[in-house]
Amino acid sequence: MPGCAPPLVDKVRRAVEELGYVPNLAARTLVTRRNDAVAVVIAEPEFRIFSDPFFQEQVRGISRELTAHDSQLVLLWVEDTGDHDRIARYLGGGHVDGALAFSLHDEDELAAVLRRAKVPTVLGGRPTDGLGPDLPYVDCDNRGGAREAVRLLVGRGCRTVAHLAGPRDQTSAADRADGYRDVLGDPDPALLCQGDFTAESGARAMAELLERRPDVDGVFAANDLMASGALRVLRERGLRVPEDVAVVGFDDVASIAERTDPPLTTVRQDIEGMGRLMVRLLMRILNDSGSGAPAPDPLITPTTLVRRASA
Amino acid sequence: MPGCAPPLVDKVRRAVEELGYVPNLAARTLVTRRNDAVAVVIAEPEFRIFSDPFFQEQVRGISRELTAHDSQLVLLWVEDTGDHDRIARYLGGGHVDGALAFSLHDEDELAAVLRRAKVPTVLGGRPTDGLGPDLPYVDCDNRGGAREAVRLLVGRGCRTVAHLAGPRDQTSAADRADGYRDVLGDPDPALLCQGDFTAESGARAMAELLERRPDVDGVFAANDLMASGALRVLRERGLRVPEDVAVVGFDDVASIAERTDPPLTTVRQDIEGMGRLMVRLLMRILNDSGSGAPAPDPLITPTTLVRRASA
Repeated sequence: MPGCAPPLVDKVRRAVEELGYVPNLAARTLVTRRNDAVAVVIAEPEFRIFSDPFFQEQVRGISRELTAHDSQLVLLWVEDTGDHDRIARYLGGGHVDGALAFSLHDEDELAAVLRRAKVPTVLGGRPTDGLGPDLPYVDCDNRGGAREAVRLLVGRGCRTVAHLAGPRDQTSAADRADGYRDVLGDPDPALLCQGDFTAESGARAMAELLERRPDVDGVFAANDLMASGALRVLRERGLRVPEDVAVVGFDDVASIAERTDPPLTTVRQDIEGMGRLMVRLLMRILNDSGSGAPAPDPLITPTTLVRRASA
Repeated sequence: MPGCAPPLVDKVRRAVEELGYVPNLAARTLVTRRNDAVAVVIAEPEFRIFSDPFFQEQVRGISRELTAHDSQLVLLWVEDTGDHDRIARYLGGGHVDGALAFSLHDEDELAAVLRRAKVPTVLGGRPTDGLGPDLPYVDCDNRGGAREAVRLLVGRGCRTVAHLAGPRDQTSAADRADGYRDVLGDPDPALLCQGDFTAESGARAMAELLERRPDVDGVFAANDLMASGALRVLRERGLRVPEDVAVVGFDDVASIAERTDPPLTTVRQDIEGMGRLMVRLLMRILNDSGSGAPAPDPLITPTTLVRRASA
């Protein structure tokens, strides 16, 4: 037991022997107070995690940065709210030094779980007020990026620019919709169609939009997966992209944006880099712990417009 | 501290106070010796885990069964051998009750890591002799399933039946190649083309095969991903499936086999069910621990041929 004075070590050792305890590595944790392990908690079911490349890129960044800190990544996810208690027990059980959580929804019970577990936590994405504004987080400039996307469509001459929005209960989706409104003021509500970040929801929203406003000539989709669904519907209807309808996505997930037909113009956020920043922010919190240092400010990374063929 | 006699508890509590220890949940683990958490360790880098639906189905089965046992799944994977020490520390650190490991390769250092960590382990897939035959495992009847696949091709009149083999250092691939030989005796070595379970390797092996033996009229691919790559090459060459070349895969991963053109005839193994069985075998080992019960026998699940259009 490094760091303990010899007589105390003896005393504990004797007590431990009387109890029949076998000294093990869990006991060592009590001394070092470091597990060199960090939990990544994704508030989505397994099928979403494996089908949305966004999570893969974020996890890749986190994994590389944790390796650089010689800390073990343990991945947890949430199939349904019935999992929360078990996750809280695990996180509160002293098995990890901290947690990185993402894809939280408004008033997600997982935020309470993380608080209850008293484990230092960094969020991916700005928390809603419902989650509590005190949680440290890393995000990208969703609103500024959305403005750029919409300005590109307006700049190329689109007169009827619609937005295929992401889920109402996630700040990234709300911020991107706000960016759309920043540029267009108060557009016809029929131009705002609701989706949930999946390709299927993008296709549905696009079909709905063509019903409501067949004159649409510009579409800003809340993410690349939704844009890919919208492009499929436009192709099926025989509409040319970008000549008839120009389309811009958000994320720049390479495995989607480079493979759509035509390749997708989109707003790039550095997803892998944000994963790395989440780790660095957590490490800073762990190093500051007990020092009375104030909670760190959030980190907001810039976005860039990536021009391909769709707009 | 439930389960400890009061005087001993007091003794430890005093020693603990002198040392300034704060009783926490990690300490509780010393008493209960259960973490209600199980590590799933996949001996593949993150990009393979997210791109091969096999892992997703296996993890799904494990996840559901662990939930039924109220045990937390923590997922770990291996980017490169440099990760082994850290993984060993985590597994040996008393954070999990056991480990489920799969996709181990011949003489994979991970087997030694698991042994060193002294954590009860169940493997997915029969270990090679190099890994040590003493490790409990769950597998499917790879060799019998392969025989069925090849017999189907022979039975439908194929005269030149080839095998696109999986990686040499994995028993599942070796067993499937053995099943091919069981039916065909000692075929022309040119009919055996090497791959590595990826779609790209299946395409490469198929192209190579068409060079060597343009008269090939039946192909048994070691898994569905390789079969999908082979079908792509046959289509590009203008060869009709199954009229010119009949193709059978292995696995029956729905997201592949139902979506190929034409849909794939394949050997079904119950991947999700095998994940569940791995958990049950581990739970049995944990319950037997200390009872002197012998190591459990492996569990081998049957396969079934699923007929679709490709053969």
